[in-house]
Amino acid sequence: MKKTFLVLLTLMCVCCCASFADDGSNLWLHKATGDKAAVTLHAKSTPTTDIAIKELTDGWNGGAVNLAITKQKGMKRDAFSISRKRGFVTITSPSDIGLLYGAYRLLQMQTLGTVSEDFELTDSPFHDIRLLNHWDNLDGNSERGYAGKSIFWHVQGFPETLGQNDVADMRNNPLRNTTYARANASLGINGAVLNNVNASPKMLTTEVLQMTQQYADVLRPYGIKVYLAVNFSSPVIVGGLKTADPYDKEVQRWWKQKAKEIYNLIPDFGGFLVKANSEGQPGPGDYGRTHAEGANLLASAIRPYGGIVMWRAFINNPTDPDRAKQARIEFEHLDGQFLDNVIIQVKNGPIDFQPREPFNALFDALKLTAEMPEFQITQEYLGQSNHLAYLGTMWEEFFHEVMPYANYKANQLRARYNAIAGVANTGTDADWTGHPLAQSNWYAFGRMAWNPDLDAETIANEWVSLTFPKLDAKQHQTLVAMLMRSREAVVDYEMPIGLHHQFGDSHYAPGAWDNRPIRRDWLPVFYNQADAEGIGFDRTKATGTDATSQYHPDFGNVMENLSTCPDKYLLWFHHVPWTHRCQSGRTVWEELCYHYQNGVNEARQLQRQWNSLEGAIDPDIFRDVQIRLMTQTRDAEWWKDGCLLYFQSLHGMPFPDFLDPPVHTLEECKHSRLNVGLYRSPTHEELNKVR
Amino acid sequence: MKKTFLVLLTLMCVCCCASFADDGSNLWLHKATGDKAAVTLHAKSTPTTDIAIKELTDGWNGGAVNLAITKQKGMKRDAFSISRKRGFVTITSPSDIGLLYGAYRLLQMQTLGTVSEDFELTDSPFHDIRLLNHWDNLDGNSERGYAGKSIFWHVQGFPETLGQNDVADMRNNPLRNTTYARANASLGINGAVLNNVNASPKMLTTEVLQMTQQYADVLRPYGIKVYLAVNFSSPVIVGGLKTADPYDKEVQRWWKQKAKEIYNLIPDFGGFLVKANSEGQPGPGDYGRTHAEGANLLASAIRPYGGIVMWRAFINNPTDPDRAKQARIEFEHLDGQFLDNVIIQVKNGPIDFQPREPFNALFDALKLTAEMPEFQITQEYLGQSNHLAYLGTMWEEFFHEVMPYANYKANQLRARYNAIAGVANTGTDADWTGHPLAQSNWYAFGRMAWNPDLDAETIANEWVSLTFPKLDAKQHQTLVAMLMRSREAVVDYEMPIGLHHQFGDSHYAPGAWDNRPIRRDWLPVFYNQADAEGIGFDRTKATGTDATSQYHPDFGNVMENLSTCPDKYLLWFHHVPWTHRCQSGRTVWEELCYHYQNGVNEARQLQRQWNSLEGAIDPDIFRDVQIRLMTQTRDAEWWKDGCLLYFQSLHGMPFPDFLDPPVHTLEECKHSRLNVGLYRSPTHEELNKVR
Repeated sequence: MKKTFLVLLTLMCVCCCASFADDGSNLWLHKATGDKAAVTLHAKSTPTTDIAIKELTDGWNGGAVNLAITKQKGMKRDAFSISRKRGFVTITSPSDIGLLYGAYRLLQMQTLGTVSEDFELTDSPFHDIRLLNHWDNLDGNSERGYAGKSIFWHVQGFPETLGQNDVADMRNNPLRNTTYARANASLGINGAVLNNVNASPKMLTTEVLQMTQQYADVLRPYGIKVYLAVNFSSPVIVGGLKTADPYDKEVQRWWKQKAKEIYNLIPDFGGFLVKANSEGQPGPGDYGRTHAEGANLLASAIRPYGGIVMWRAFINNPTDPDRAKQARIEFEHLDGQFLDNVIIQVKNGPIDFQPREPFNALFDALKLTAEMPEFQITQEYLGQSNHLAYLGTMWEEFFHEVMPYANYKANQLRARYNAIAGVANTGTDADWTGHPLAQSNWYAFGRMAWNPDLDAETIANEWVSLTFPKLDAKQHQTLVAMLMRSREAVVDYEMPIGLHHQFGDSHYAPGAWDNRPIRRDWLPVFYNQADAEGIGFDRTKATGTDATSQYHPDFGNVMENLSTCPDKYLLWFHHVPWTHRCQSGRTVWEELCYHYQNGVNEARQLQRQWNSLEGAIDPDIFRDVQIRLMTQTRDAEWWKDGCLLYFQSLHGMPFPDFLDPPVHTLEECKHSRLNVGLYRSPTHEELNKVR
Repeated sequence: MKKTFLVLLTLMCVCCCASFADDGSNLWLHKATGDKAAVTLHAKSTPTTDIAIKELTDGWNGGAVNLAITKQKGMKRDAFSISRKRGFVTITSPSDIGLLYGAYRLLQMQTLGTVSEDFELTDSPFHDIRLLNHWDNLDGNSERGYAGKSIFWHVQGFPETLGQNDVADMRNNPLRNTTYARANASLGINGAVLNNVNASPKMLTTEVLQMTQQYADVLRPYGIKVYLAVNFSSPVIVGGLKTADPYDKEVQRWWKQKAKEIYNLIPDFGGFLVKANSEGQPGPGDYGRTHAEGANLLASAIRPYGGIVMWRAFINNPTDPDRAKQARIEFEHLDGQFLDNVIIQVKNGPIDFQPREPFNALFDALKLTAEMPEFQITQEYLGQSNHLAYLGTMWEEFFHEVMPYANYKANQLRARYNAIAGVANTGTDADWTGHPLAQSNWYAFGRMAWNPDLDAETIANEWVSLTFPKLDAKQHQTLVAMLMRSREAVVDYEMPIGLHHQFGDSHYAPGAWDNRPIRRDWLPVFYNQADAEGIGFDRTKATGTDATSQYHPDFGNVMENLSTCPDKYLLWFHHVPWTHRCQSGRTVWEELCYHYQNGVNEARQLQRQWNSLEGAIDPDIFRDVQIRLMTQTRDAEWWKDGCLLYFQSLHGMPFPDFLDPPVHTLEECKHSRLNVGLYRSPTHEELNKVR
């Protein structure tokens, strides 16, 4: 039947026929050498070792390789060692998946040119559970996805027509394209939540569970477990019960029965991700129960099978005037009440994936409950797939802050389950991520999930070398430099010096002026608090919402004190007059102008740098990125003009001379729609047309 | 009857009620002081002396003034002297209009602050006939007018309904608003062609002549004669004859009869302007007759009354492959065949009012025939009323070239009639010119028509002082600096280093790539001759069209020689490789990039400078200009991106680093329409909305 998974089929064809063509579909994966390496397995053969052998046979050209399972005390199951002596390479691990990770690492080192004659290395992941969250819906759409359609679901006419035909299709057309699995395994990503946190109750129907089984079977040899996001009301909607109250025996029985059904199909099913009582989703609060009571309901159902529940701490119904404080307020008092297979999944920042936020104070609060950071790889708030924004620098900044102040490592190591998640930026576009360079964010997430101590530049260097191995040293450095400055450029032209949530509806275009009669804490004006006298959201203890006290004093006091608060967080923590002197020496008004202009300048510089790579990059990818970078500069001008004209309309101060004068009126910025039409990568023909 | 001249009525009301409000409608004219000066006339009172007395009485505050008619040998009729001794001012002239000119000069000096205790000056115009050409149609439209509708004609439903009702309306509502007449008289402009050179034959109907009479009566006291542009086929279309052949007796009789009718209505009627055998207009060529035979037909009809014929040398049906040579080719051999009341009206450049052209070689050719330059005050090719382009600098450049090389002055003085014309930029917009700062071009034309030796900066200083007398010294200098650089900015972002006619259809947006299957010499690609190897139109004797030989050798040889041809005319006279070194030291490609970027930078600088005047300029005018300057920068980016991307598509060389990378694709530039919606000045309410 053609009506489902057609997209997957198409994808398969493209990828099978031309899996090593330079259309970006091969991601950072090595290319086959044409030779066949001699690989010997000193262990029982498994589907996973088969893959390791095949990858090495096709890709390695540095002599014979031995693979061996070795149990070593204290060594994590998926850790590995690689050694090379007298031309012989040996990879060892306690597990077959560790051998596969070692194989990918060796192949990466080959491309990176870091294989020396004799060497020995051991690597072990910091996080045990390293997850992609796919916000994909059964109907094929991907929420906050900017790279085409869902790579997993494409049930035509869903939900009305879901039935056995779809399941049959699924069985006939499993996810044969292994690039997704290889890419994840090459980074050590070992789990995927296959659907949106705004979860359809249909996910727990037998039909969809049978589809899920297909993915589990395909992904299992690559060490990737499947997880599902579930709707808390599933017992009512799918099960036909009258309630989903955690204290109802029928409800408890329903979840236990459902767990049994799932694990019967997928013995290594990873578990559930739940968004409850947030943005309209049902949850235990509907029955007067706590998050802990809700989470434990599901956790106890799957605990016998080794499953986990990831319970999101993203709460969008604040009781406190400052939404930034809500996660900690809502979860701190529940510490210790969760079962040990529950993990609280916490967004890196306290608001919502903004281009820059300080870390979420909840990381500083829970001592008895496992926590996992949730990063957003998809660029919901950073220009989506139109803008270049390498997020390695953002996540490095997060770890840099969260490690010492929130005692991140100790807390993670204390927990039974130690995990991290990233909201994926994958879609059906040929290059997987819409913006070809956004592949770097998938890569960087995987690398940092494995080792949060890695710095962003090291990762950028790796990714550039693996993805564009033919660049010369200067070209390589140009591209790395582009990546390294790109996120700060977005911060500069969208929301510098601590501004946040200045978006219009789409989370793409500027909306600093937005003051519609809706919930105040959804509005940019609520977050900028700009008026004739000043700007910024006062979160100080002294005069504001006292968000600073949620942090460890070593961090909170620095933020509380205007003289020590760094400019980059100024307007996050302080409301100041327009004439306030920043640490830069400029007034706040000048500083805003300086950053908005710098963002535009940086966007132009990205264009220049990319243009200098013409001829060294595949022409289609070159043109695709060239056009996206053009759009980025144009959008940067729009952000600059819109935000600065709005602020100027409040205080009337002149623009400093260094500013490019506006090329839009405020009214235009308010009413015009930006070009967000590049979510699907342009075809070769389209690229030639717009060239 | 309301159907005609409603616009004039409206205009009148606005101007009468608020003639001194700061809406730009008062142009550069002085404001009433509130005092009443003592003015004594030592001559016969005339309507003209009445005006002089009223202007001085209302506006002068420097003591008593005597006006006296004095015949002085060798003094031109409209020359004047002003002297001040012991507080008494005396203005003398051989004519009443000279007295009025002197009065306006004295009032200007008062605002300029150049009236000293004792002084004496005499001033005499260089050109005797100083004309505005209004390209206005009877239906109320103004060809190449960007300031609203025609200020003269607004015959609803024309031509079908033209009849006695319209004439009656006209009689009841003559042009009472005297600002137009005062502004012209204040500069010495002494004639106006009231209609488009693409002339309706209806202009010579009795009905329209009676309307024209009304304008003549209103304008006469200000020394302004009316002229009409006429259609060469009028004897056929209006007169019902079978031919318009100059050799036909009936035709000759018809013109003589028509002349008699006209002069019966308007005894001082100035004469005819004719566009013949050009762009589809009829002419003597239709009957195998020469321009001279055609012009003399009309000239002999009005010669008895003192009328003149201005015969345009703009020929758009080239026989030579190089249209730039056509005017000289077509008229040179006719030298001496024209009656002495015929003047050949020659556009300043050989193509068509481009942002920069060398002077028309026809000025170098005619020795026995009177010639008059035709300037275009309306900015058909310089951003229309959206862009700031002060044209004083362009006309100074013309006179600088044409004076020595074409022996301009001697030729003018030898002719019986010595004249100059400018295509007006006036319309029904409150500020007359659409762009408020475009008033400076009307002013500059008038001043240079009077005295072509005046430099553009002196005139700019005058205009700024008269129009914005409240600016302080620094603000004044800022605005003068804006004017002085503005035309070169347009040249830079539209057509630098000798490029010309790179427009799309509207003569507004870029069209460098335009290669449609139409007449080659209408196409930008014909004029840029750009290909993979080089760019430019070869007009050298050595290898090109030999246009250089049309010039005096002192000019032509400099242009012919690549090593001496100035960069600003490089691509006008030469086709060169992209890698050719300009006199600047840059390659042609770099030089183009440099100028296009400089144009954008200059546009931005205009915005900055104007913004610095906020508070010193009437708010409505300030906002109006602010928005137009924003549009100018945006359009400059469009020109830069479109032209450079097109040229790059031919040769593939990279952009230099100093260039702001494009924010449009070439395809967008080809297909998008620019905002040319500001031809009507925005209202106060609209300005507030877009602010």
